[in-house]
Amino acid sequence: MYARDRALQMLGIDIVDVAPGFARAVFTVREDMVNGHDVCHGGLLFTLADSAFAYACNSRNDSAVALQCSISFTAPGRVGERVEAVARERALGGRTGTYDVEVVGPSGPIALFRGVSYRIAGTVAPAS
Amino acid sequence: MYARDRALQMLGIDIVDVAPGFARAVFTVREDMVNGHDVCHGGLLFTLADSAFAYACNSRNDSAVALQCSISFTAPGRVGERVEAVARERALGGRTGTYDVEVVGPSGPIALFRGVSYRIAGTVAPAS
Amino acid sequence: MYARDRALQMLGIDIVDVAPGFARAVFTVREDMVNGHDVCHGGLLFTLADSAFAYACNSRNDSAVALQCSISFTAPGRVGERVEAVARERALGGRTGTYDVEVVGPSGPIALFRGVSYRIAGTVAPAS
Amino acid sequence: MYARDRALQMLGIDIVDVAPGFARAVFTVREDMVNGHDVCHGGLLFTLADSAFAYACNSRNDSAVALQCSISFTAPGRVGERVEAVARERALGGRTGTYDVEVVGPSGPIALFRGVSYRIAGTVAPAS
Repeated sequence: MYARDRALQMLGIDIVDVAPGFARAVFTVREDMVNGHDVCHGGLLFTLADSAFAYACNSRNDSAVALQCSISFTAPGRVGERVEAVARERALGGRTGTYDVEVVGPSGPIALFRGVSYRIAGTVAPAS
Repeated sequence: MYARDRALQMLGIDIVDVAPGFARAVFTVREDMVNGHDVCHGGLLFTLADSAFAYACNSRNDSAVALQCSISFTAPGRVGERVEAVARERALGGRTGTYDVEVVGPSGPIALFRGVSYRIAGTVAPAS
Repeated sequence: MYARDRALQMLGIDIVDVAPGFARAVFTVREDMVNGHDVCHGGLLFTLADSAFAYACNSRNDSAVALQCSISFTAPGRVGERVEAVARERALGGRTGTYDVEVVGPSGPIALFRGVSYRIAGTVAPAS
Repeated sequence: MYARDRALQMLGIDIVDVAPGFARAVFTVREDMVNGHDVCHGGLLFTLADSAFAYACNSRNDSAVALQCSISFTAPGRVGERVEAVARERALGGRTGTYDVEVVGPSGPIALFRGVSYRIAGTVAPAS
């Protein structure tokens, strides 16, 4: 999955850990990742969290996609900082699952993400 | 704001329209934007929507930041497609605002985003 | 469905309109519905919106349940006010659907709700 | 605050624990709390969680209101079950805070709630 995941490579996101219901993704905030306020674009913090979420919910050899995600931004990420997203499964039921992802920089948490996944058959086009 | 917004430039996001409480952002899905399912990474659709949201909530010459965002993914985005995110203010009160962003591809809507913003004084570090 | 829906009756919620992908629910804020700030408890505004959502997503004769819901509170609701929640389908795909519900009092919108539904087989226990 | 909180009394919600950044609320699912699927109305599970959230974010003697809340429903609540909502502060910054609330029945978790609060001056009308 990672070899084909070109967006991760473009953004320098590494998946450093995968276990059933768990994944950890990291990147370093580059100069081309900041927004007009000179802090890491919130969308890229989301992308890091969403990537950890995707690997956590595909960790059981099902094919799962993101259905709904939310994120609270609690502190800024800055250029040069290494940021880590840790995804943990919180609930599984029917074809859906709920995952929490904590996004942490050198000075502590900077965002809280929650995602709902949906398990699909292999041939259905995933939503994201 | 756009000139300093390096993340937008890295992702090829154009802000094509800004008016009070309104903004429109577009990009074309590149080959380096797909995930392991070969569709546009959900995080990059979020980033497009979040960018439209940011310009809409800064359209009143306040300095506003994203506090909480959520997104529902309803259809995939594919390589080569032009995707547009249209942000509209839904409510303003005290120092907070609520915005809806519709993300639309050539075949119709592909994601629905909602963001809550918070207006800050100019010198406070924004969260994202 | 309404006859068995005892929570609606307890709270004085009326379902005044149902059409495919659409529903409208109303209640009047009673004195026993306020919180410690003397305004309508946010949970009861959520309950009104969630009820409109439930009838909208069951309007197609599927059995659907709420999977994930979010709400932004934008203004208070006060005792004696008639409050209306209007639910509209925004997307349908696979077994899931996305619905927006606007909650409106006499002076305008007071909350924005968004729900993701999941269609189940008749015998599966719904989550809520 | 509790004495004036008539909605809690109407629903039989007890606030059994409050500490800085923490609160615990409980109720028992009554027969008049079920929806048309004969399980506890999701709105009332939300109301329980939202109440724990409200007491946790007012635990510091600020006056705080709910700005945005989301909930994932993971299992049903049934008549006669005692359900507990435990709210914990996850982040505080500027005038906003983020709280997680876990809603647990006799058989385990049934919903996950996350709320963003906003601290107001005493005379401003709260949103919910």
